[in-house]
Amino acid sequence: MSKKAVVLVSGGLDSATVLAMAKDQGYTCYALSMDYGQRHRIELDRARKVALANGAAEHRVVRIDIGNFGGSALTDQDLAVPTQASTEIPITYVPARNTVFLSVALGWAEVLGAQAIFIGANAVDYSGYPDCRPEYIAAFQAMANLATKTGVNGETIRIEAPIIDLTKADIIKAGTTLGVDYSHTISCYNPRTDGKVCGECDSCRIRAAGFAATGVPDPALI
Amino acid sequence: MSKKAVVLVSGGLDSATVLAMAKDQGYTCYALSMDYGQRHRIELDRARKVALANGAAEHRVVRIDIGNFGGSALTDQDLAVPTQASTEIPITYVPARNTVFLSVALGWAEVLGAQAIFIGANAVDYSGYPDCRPEYIAAFQAMANLATKTGVNGETIRIEAPIIDLTKADIIKAGTTLGVDYSHTISCYNPRTDGKVCGECDSCRIRAAGFAATGVPDPALI
Repeated sequence: MSKKAVVLVSGGLDSATVLAMAKDQGYTCYALSMDYGQRHRIELDRARKVALANGAAEHRVVRIDIGNFGGSALTDQDLAVPTQASTEIPITYVPARNTVFLSVALGWAEVLGAQAIFIGANAVDYSGYPDCRPEYIAAFQAMANLATKTGVNGETIRIEAPIIDLTKADIIKAGTTLGVDYSHTISCYNPRTDGKVCGECDSCRIRAAGFAATGVPDPALI
Repeated sequence: MSKKAVVLVSGGLDSATVLAMAKDQGYTCYALSMDYGQRHRIELDRARKVALANGAAEHRVVRIDIGNFGGSALTDQDLAVPTQASTEIPITYVPARNTVFLSVALGWAEVLGAQAIFIGANAVDYSGYPDCRPEYIAAFQAMANLATKTGVNGETIRIEAPIIDLTKADIIKAGTTLGVDYSHTISCYNPRTDGKVCGECDSCRIRAAGFAATGVPDPALI
């Protein structure tokens, strides 16, 4: 029986790499994206391209209106996306986002009989979000084991965060080795209406620094 | 400053009681219901009635398509709702349901600056779902503390499950003392098209036994 994994795919660089890693590990991959009212909804189109290009068996977009709660510059058009790095958790933080995403993935994984959920959380070159840290992932795993029929039956749906301690440059190198086409991906928090990246947000700056460190140009900018 | 709580309100007896308990504890209550493709969608109307009757400051219904994943008789019309008790976790189990609900509640609670989330989970007179047990609630709490900016800042959004170890009869007695009008509530997994309860599902049978034990007739059946 083939191994199955639900892979959270945002359309960005990190999750594209993680999808390729899951496939490389022999998983049949079920790509899952969330339409949560993000201002960068273009990433949903990119997520579909990434899922197709990397051989996902299926790609689903689940709509959930957590963006309506407000409180984040990623979902509230009245809040500006910062163009400077911050020493605090920035206003682009979406409350409980990864928890909601992983919870939905957990439900789908259990229905599919999947052995793992892959998430592109990263705690090195990142925006400082609490739900990207290894201790958070471990706590989610412990909770998931108690939450599910699968867990009660003594099996584990593993939460895999394979790039959590990699630098952005190392993520890009790993993905390139696996054949990831980064031209499909978009990492910008605040893309322009024509789909071009802003070049100024945290995510754009971290991505640019990552490509600069690898010495390879970003194919999405060519 | 008044205390705030997000209260998960399903339209059923348990969560109506919990909403009254939260209000009695002095919280300004924000009622949250989920439209997840349940076959018993009439409960969303009842949830609104329950929220209004118990003085919630606001009632929100968040739509999330986890029902599309299938795998549960509560969301899949092709799976029959059992009319017999089971010693195993029944097919009415919706994978990761409480985890998804609590995650969405966590997001809203953080935006509101709420101190608590109330959930009507019960591990005594219940259907045996894993995500209704005290150890699950504790694990969710531990995860939530790591997931949020609130947690990083040293504060806790408490997950309150005040009826988790009460019998159904004791829940009804507590709610009645607080003035809960149970005629607004519906507990049936499989209501008929005219809104009448089936009287045969797990939830109907547990509710009937609870009212029988209190010696008070169920006002929803009068």
